[in-house]
Amino acid sequence: MSLREVGPRDGLQNEDPVPTAAKVALLDALSSTGVRRIEAVSFVHPKAIPQMADAEEVWAAAHKEPGVRYSALVPNSRGATRALEAGFTELEVVVSASDTHNRRNVNRSTAESLDDITGLIDQVHEAGGSVEVIVATSFGCPYEGNVAPERVAGIVRRVLADGADRVAYGDTTGMATPRRVRELFRAVPPPTRVPTLLHFHNTRGTGLANILTALELGVVEFDASVGGLGGCPYAPGASGNVATEEVVHMLADMEIETGVDLDKLIDAARLAQKIVGRDLPSGVLKAGPRVPR
Amino acid sequence: MSLREVGPRDGLQNEDPVPTAAKVALLDALSSTGVRRIEAVSFVHPKAIPQMADAEEVWAAAHKEPGVRYSALVPNSRGATRALEAGFTELEVVVSASDTHNRRNVNRSTAESLDDITGLIDQVHEAGGSVEVIVATSFGCPYEGNVAPERVAGIVRRVLADGADRVAYGDTTGMATPRRVRELFRAVPPPTRVPTLLHFHNTRGTGLANILTALELGVVEFDASVGGLGGCPYAPGASGNVATEEVVHMLADMEIETGVDLDKLIDAARLAQKIVGRDLPSGVLKAGPRVPR
Repeated sequence: MSLREVGPRDGLQNEDPVPTAAKVALLDALSSTGVRRIEAVSFVHPKAIPQMADAEEVWAAAHKEPGVRYSALVPNSRGATRALEAGFTELEVVVSASDTHNRRNVNRSTAESLDDITGLIDQVHEAGGSVEVIVATSFGCPYEGNVAPERVAGIVRRVLADGADRVAYGDTTGMATPRRVRELFRAVPPPTRVPTLLHFHNTRGTGLANILTALELGVVEFDASVGGLGGCPYAPGASGNVATEEVVHMLADMEIETGVDLDKLIDAARLAQKIVGRDLPSGVLKAGPRVPR
Repeated sequence: MSLREVGPRDGLQNEDPVPTAAKVALLDALSSTGVRRIEAVSFVHPKAIPQMADAEEVWAAAHKEPGVRYSALVPNSRGATRALEAGFTELEVVVSASDTHNRRNVNRSTAESLDDITGLIDQVHEAGGSVEVIVATSFGCPYEGNVAPERVAGIVRRVLADGADRVAYGDTTGMATPRRVRELFRAVPPPTRVPTLLHFHNTRGTGLANILTALELGVVEFDASVGGLGGCPYAPGASGNVATEEVVHMLADMEIETGVDLDKLIDAARLAQKIVGRDLPSGVLKAGPRVPR
């Protein structure tokens, strides 16, 4: 089971800005939990996303735990250059399956973004790095409603043809359900053929039910955010990313190994809670594990 | 699909006491949602549970919607008498699979409680009513940890031999997981043979994953609480009962019919939130349905 912790990037990017030292402390706490992958920072324009303006400083100061794969999100070629210069080799780039969502996010069509990604993949490959393409709104769009799995599949065919190393399906606003997960995997390549990661939100309570369904379909890579850090930018007060503790807790009960020490992870979630100064939604953080170890 | 709304009883019993009129208003709002079963009140000693001291008044004032099955929880023979006199025919009684939990709850062993239930079943049957036996801590006990499915199965065999009409398995403190659900149903009678209801909490995020698992095992009766009303008495600030909106929302997406109008249910959840004066944990209440109808 390959769990990627996205709290330091996706989580903090959707919270009020926090000091550089706090970001480094959270990264270091997570690096010590045994988790094997961490999305560390994003290299975005500081005017667009002030939360990540200090990405280089954060990454330079963070402890790099041997055996942990760290990745960075980049919006474009300029961001890719920054990420590569900072030393990242695993890069992620986002395109939205919903044209409306893509336009509202980056002011261009999905097709235009895909053309940009073609060049970005070449650039990263030439520098010796790899690219994961995250297809946002894969399970639905807050503006367009349901998104046809065939549309998502078309995007994936395109980016694979362009050389993408991995794909991820993003449940951007918490619209994924067990049914939508099953329907998507009838259209897209199986995870046995293409390295595939799922990124679920728990906005409407289905986070773990979606993961359970995806496990049955052979998916073994998931994103999760410590404490459920991140919130949902489309529904104030609602949950965003599925909480890492809840995922690890359920998987441990199923005897699925993640490498993560749940006690250390809960400590990291407490730190995350302190950093953002509000209660985080993670149930396992609030109530503790079902049976203490 | 048979969904039982437990907010008026289980929900309000675990909140600070609210006025009689508010209880009636919530019951009436829920009766109008299309839900087919409601746990309305409990007939317990007012000193033990002041939240339900006005059970007779609440029930007398509530609108009785034709086609809705209303039930009441009773702790003992005295409570059963009150419930029958108030006009209930569907009664529920609880026994805990964990001896420690049973002793802390009612100051007697599980075996002693089972002896009491034998007499209670006879009493209710003689009056023309039916009895559901709820086996609390079926998925784990906060004091004892895991509870052996064989122990739960033994209790069920006993109460069925004594004439219980239905059984329910209670996830009293949110310890159920998909694995524990599967393991329980390897030990207890299948839902095709014995009318079986599952009562899950969402304390650690697994509420809907548990329901999904139980559906695969053939279970078609579930409890849920409007808004997630109720909290978790063992973990302050944590979620308790799975929220009815989240259950209805996921089932509707799966095209499983519950009879419930989600918009009316969300209205009832807003009322519940107003009544208890705090934010309730339901994600669908906070974020709305994934696709508005």
